[in-house]
Amino acid sequence: MSKTIAIIGLGLIGGSMAMALKGFEDFEVLGVDRDSATLEFAAAHKVADRLTDDAEAAIADADVVYLCLHPGAIVDFLKAHRGDFKPGSLVTDVCGIKTAVVDAAAVLPDEVDFIGGHPMAGKETSGIFHADGDLFRGAHYILTPRPGHRPEHLDLLRRIAAYIGCRDVVETTTQKHDAIIAYTSQVMHIMAVAVCDDPDLFECRGFEGGSFRDCTRVAALDVPLWTELFSMNASALTKVIRNLEDNLRAYRQVLERGDTAALARKLAWSADRKRHMDLE
Amino acid sequence: MSKTIAIIGLGLIGGSMAMALKGFEDFEVLGVDRDSATLEFAAAHKVADRLTDDAEAAIADADVVYLCLHPGAIVDFLKAHRGDFKPGSLVTDVCGIKTAVVDAAAVLPDEVDFIGGHPMAGKETSGIFHADGDLFRGAHYILTPRPGHRPEHLDLLRRIAAYIGCRDVVETTTQKHDAIIAYTSQVMHIMAVAVCDDPDLFECRGFEGGSFRDCTRVAALDVPLWTELFSMNASALTKVIRNLEDNLRAYRQVLERGDTAALARKLAWSADRKRHMDLE
Repeated sequence: MSKTIAIIGLGLIGGSMAMALKGFEDFEVLGVDRDSATLEFAAAHKVADRLTDDAEAAIADADVVYLCLHPGAIVDFLKAHRGDFKPGSLVTDVCGIKTAVVDAAAVLPDEVDFIGGHPMAGKETSGIFHADGDLFRGAHYILTPRPGHRPEHLDLLRRIAAYIGCRDVVETTTQKHDAIIAYTSQVMHIMAVAVCDDPDLFECRGFEGGSFRDCTRVAALDVPLWTELFSMNASALTKVIRNLEDNLRAYRQVLERGDTAALARKLAWSADRKRHMDLE
Repeated sequence: MSKTIAIIGLGLIGGSMAMALKGFEDFEVLGVDRDSATLEFAAAHKVADRLTDDAEAAIADADVVYLCLHPGAIVDFLKAHRGDFKPGSLVTDVCGIKTAVVDAAAVLPDEVDFIGGHPMAGKETSGIFHADGDLFRGAHYILTPRPGHRPEHLDLLRRIAAYIGCRDVVETTTQKHDAIIAYTSQVMHIMAVAVCDDPDLFECRGFEGGSFRDCTRVAALDVPLWTELFSMNASALTKVIRNLEDNLRAYRQVLERGDTAALARKLAWSADRKRHMDLE
């Protein structure tokens, strides 16, 4: 008998996850959304094996539930539906912050297993219209299992990560995830928007190279989503922003002093750290 | 009778320019470098039509001279060789700052035409070993003609820009170039190195996504080159760094206040500016 993965929320990530999961083992992929235009698009593009707008019925029946909502909506959904999940099922999410979401999962009964997840992929667009079954190829898939999780569910998520094309699975705690993600992802987005606040922005057409296009790419972000992601991780994020301000100021001050030798030393130190990171 | 373009300095940009220029109209491409390993590599890979280590003889004979040295070396070269260029020739450069270089060209005699140039392409590697004839494809080619330049030379540079695959030619003043480039290019590099100064850098393997890879890509920079580029444009660059510090601080403060509505308004404003930039 086939099992069911229910994807709650067919936005960019949920829609992409549904597409990427099609054909995974003996699971049927059930797409769930409240928005009729989203469901119509999903039906026309065969985003999932089956579609419904009835989340309650879907999670009552599903063996695996992927919560692909904004973080605040996940917290609300867990609270509202805590008694509706199938006993023995796995509930997971794809959200860019983990502490707030995993803490909220404490409302679930013991027989429902929650393992927080964050496949590190995205686009500077949103909605199912931009969904892409290849979105997760080459991405890290971060998992934050709670004490007492069921090991077979962690195995299942590892097989899913491999199936959708992720490069690896990284296990960590929710606190470490949120602290590091403030640095590797959130502050990159803050920098991108801060760069676009420069009064010279609209003067720069014709003068931009690859570094400008790369850095500002993510500035056209989904505002409600990122408002929640930043706000719900504010203490880690403000610490990283402060570090960055300090590091920028140090470069500015050595330039203002006209100390070329010190500038060269600083650049050599930073460039060497980057080379040691060895990201492809 | 064929004419000659001499490329002085076969580094990443000079080597790429020589390769890109091969076959341009009836010009012979003459590659010039003092380093024997560079000349050997250039000969083995047919980087230019002809090679020499004799810059003085090369510029005495060349109709077009491309100075592809670091900015300080260009200033020194112009001073040392001011009387050696062929009368009626065009001298240009490919340097990322323009005021210091074009000012230095004032030492040239009236019968030698100097037009500053900046094809906005690069890599986070250096040396002829990484040269690539396709490096300039899709790049903006910025030109800063001086009053009294010869229009046929500007036309020639426009035909070269098209031949090597640049998307367009942008004419501007040296001052405007340097002010805008401080923003669109130099501060992107300062941000990339400043991000790599964060104490958490080496914790972040496994947690990085596209935005982190994109933003820090240029941090592994050529230290002597960028020390000069930053130092020789310090007043414009420090102004842009200060703006960025201010814009980051504004985001940090709204996060520290916990003012979610103000954060959403700020993000909407910045993301909207980015969307209006409409870079592909």
